[in-house]
Amino acid sequence: MADKPAPVSPLAPAAFPALPAIDGVRFAAAEAGVRYAGRLDVMLAEIAPGSTMAGVFTRSATRSGPVLWCEEKLAALRAGGAVEAGFAILVNSGNANAFTGGAGRAAVEASAAATASALGVPVGHVLVASTGVIGEPLPAERIVAALGGLRDGLAMDAAERAARAIMTTDTFPKGSAARIDLDGVPVTIMGFAKGSGMIAPDMATMLAFLFTDVAIAPGLLQAAVTRASDETFNCITVDGDTSTSDTLLLAATGRAAMRPIADASDARLAGFEAALTDVMRDLAHQVVRDGEGATKFVEVRVTGAESPTDARKVGLSIANSPLVKTAIAGEDPNWGRIVMAVGKSGAAADRDRLTIRLGEILVAEAGWVAPSYREPDGAAYMKNSELVIGVDLGMGRGAATIWTCDLTHRYIEINADYRS
Amino acid sequence: MADKPAPVSPLAPAAFPALPAIDGVRFAAAEAGVRYAGRLDVMLAEIAPGSTMAGVFTRSATRSGPVLWCEEKLAALRAGGAVEAGFAILVNSGNANAFTGGAGRAAVEASAAATASALGVPVGHVLVASTGVIGEPLPAERIVAALGGLRDGLAMDAAERAARAIMTTDTFPKGSAARIDLDGVPVTIMGFAKGSGMIAPDMATMLAFLFTDVAIAPGLLQAAVTRASDETFNCITVDGDTSTSDTLLLAATGRAAMRPIADASDARLAGFEAALTDVMRDLAHQVVRDGEGATKFVEVRVTGAESPTDARKVGLSIANSPLVKTAIAGEDPNWGRIVMAVGKSGAAADRDRLTIRLGEILVAEAGWVAPSYREPDGAAYMKNSELVIGVDLGMGRGAATIWTCDLTHRYIEINADYRS
Repeated sequence: MADKPAPVSPLAPAAFPALPAIDGVRFAAAEAGVRYAGRLDVMLAEIAPGSTMAGVFTRSATRSGPVLWCEEKLAALRAGGAVEAGFAILVNSGNANAFTGGAGRAAVEASAAATASALGVPVGHVLVASTGVIGEPLPAERIVAALGGLRDGLAMDAAERAARAIMTTDTFPKGSAARIDLDGVPVTIMGFAKGSGMIAPDMATMLAFLFTDVAIAPGLLQAAVTRASDETFNCITVDGDTSTSDTLLLAATGRAAMRPIADASDARLAGFEAALTDVMRDLAHQVVRDGEGATKFVEVRVTGAESPTDARKVGLSIANSPLVKTAIAGEDPNWGRIVMAVGKSGAAADRDRLTIRLGEILVAEAGWVAPSYREPDGAAYMKNSELVIGVDLGMGRGAATIWTCDLTHRYIEINADYRS
Repeated sequence: MADKPAPVSPLAPAAFPALPAIDGVRFAAAEAGVRYAGRLDVMLAEIAPGSTMAGVFTRSATRSGPVLWCEEKLAALRAGGAVEAGFAILVNSGNANAFTGGAGRAAVEASAAATASALGVPVGHVLVASTGVIGEPLPAERIVAALGGLRDGLAMDAAERAARAIMTTDTFPKGSAARIDLDGVPVTIMGFAKGSGMIAPDMATMLAFLFTDVAIAPGLLQAAVTRASDETFNCITVDGDTSTSDTLLLAATGRAAMRPIADASDARLAGFEAALTDVMRDLAHQVVRDGEGATKFVEVRVTGAESPTDARKVGLSIANSPLVKTAIAGEDPNWGRIVMAVGKSGAAADRDRLTIRLGEILVAEAGWVAPSYREPDGAAYMKNSELVIGVDLGMGRGAATIWTCDLTHRYIEINADYRS
């Protein structure tokens, strides 16, 4: 959120995708001046009556007011408080409304009440998210003042503007979509996300909003999005830091011409969940590609661990290691630092069973550098902008894949100057 | 270990301290050309017969050959294998002899055997340590070739040269000493250490060698150094990375004119342990002060946690957070990032009971910024080169103190270019 726009990440996709409209969903975005003038900073999504909502949130012990609000409202919906009415999602950037005490709650309530009134939905159907600076009061009145214009501007094809309005240090907006066929019925999933720093598993400073026309029971929708999060957003890390505001919401309007998926044994569920996971993985990768200062997109593939938990520990230890990340930034095939990160991870490991690969290049095995390994090959591989680090622990069958980026001067620049 | 010497850390002490001699201990250092020419890179310590040895080592699952050797030899001594003979400590910089498979063990054995022969001590009394690049074979023959000269150069007053020989990316040698009086008998403790990057609890790329003339039973010496490590070296972090080579050795010659401390109830033990802890804390702080790229020395004081374990989690979460560390580098009183780090730590916390202080300045309490807090005060405080971040969780009585430094461009420079 520097005053001058940052250069777009070199790892960004060529263009924002053309996001398909979802029957029953409209968007609007506005310049409300929450923190900075002259940029979109509030987005509103209106979701038709009859829809189902699900969400996944940060597990931080210092969760923001908006997160606590959403958790409370979704719990009430799950407890049977649902009424036949539409939903709204109201999101601002520039201010996270986190660690703002009672004033934070009041700002959420004021925004939600005004949104409910503007769209004619129950206040318990208004979900909110805020992202930006922590600890400063949210000027809810500026958001409330923008609501009339937002309502009047709602449009089915305004998702890209909405995606832009939720950006903070992001250098590009992030969107993704999938169209699938469920027993002959075309179904669409689309969504957008923001996130660039403070990204780590358990949902970092990351907001994602997904929409589909699938017809599905609330419990199944929630279970699907939870599993998909565990395989996508919870497998990315930029700096190991975790925000107080992470929010993922998924709305299913049920407007596709299908009978609802009402049972976990319904074969269509797997198809839907696979497509949802694809969209979410794509968005998660885009967040990593926009990692603050990133110049390399890195996939860490861990296999042969004693358990999936151990594999994840090793993957995160490598992906979060400042020494590994700076070596990647320096295009240095410094596999010794990978060994170090395996060793410190806390997972069961045996030096003499460890195998390390850079892409297809066998680098180390059986406790030492592989006889076939040539340093210039490793150095040449490291010049790629997309890297795969493969680690096999030789202990069992646990596997995990983590995505991350390198740690560069630009990260320091962005984060030493963000607020002052 | 750049080709040109790096500028000395701005946080370095004014000078290397005058280290007192320890009766029964002699040092030598040499240029063996382990990796680079023209610098001291091997040190030898000779310790008189009748001494007691204790050690603390990295808990990495990929511990280096030298670490495994030392653990094995100290275990044998504890198991009753001690004979009346002297000890040797042989240390090289430039190459960590880590992840070097069978060749690594062979290099340790060759070096230890040659040292045993040169000094006339049993091979099981030779302890070794190596620090530097991981995964490359250690040229033990260069070290062995230097042994004759090292033996001939042994001197009681050569500790500073020894301290210089073990440096890698360190910008200054680190020494400390204490003289105390135990029931009227003067006793001396002195030691030196190296470490600059890859520093984290559980003993990071950190070597420390301590010497004392106290007379003490081996089990009591080991227990004292383990407790002291937990309060000193295991409470520092530069980057959260943990090395495969961390080694701390403590030799007690027993030459002070005292009857040995033979029982845990001996009142002199507490006096000795307190002085030992002081020396080790001083060395640990010097390691942080030489943290790669450090411009700020930061003490994180956590109080009011549910347990000491929770306090330590919070302290490390703050001290290792890239966003906190870059804010400190930018002299930004960004206490929101401290809230974030508390939240992600996994410790029990309640936003509305959290108190945050910068030095004596009350910044946040009861879930929000303190009414008395003025941002310019926080900003002025952050300009200090020594900072205290105080966090009270308001949950219980658990406390912990962690020491760390900021994360700067220089860290990236050092670590993106270290090896290639």
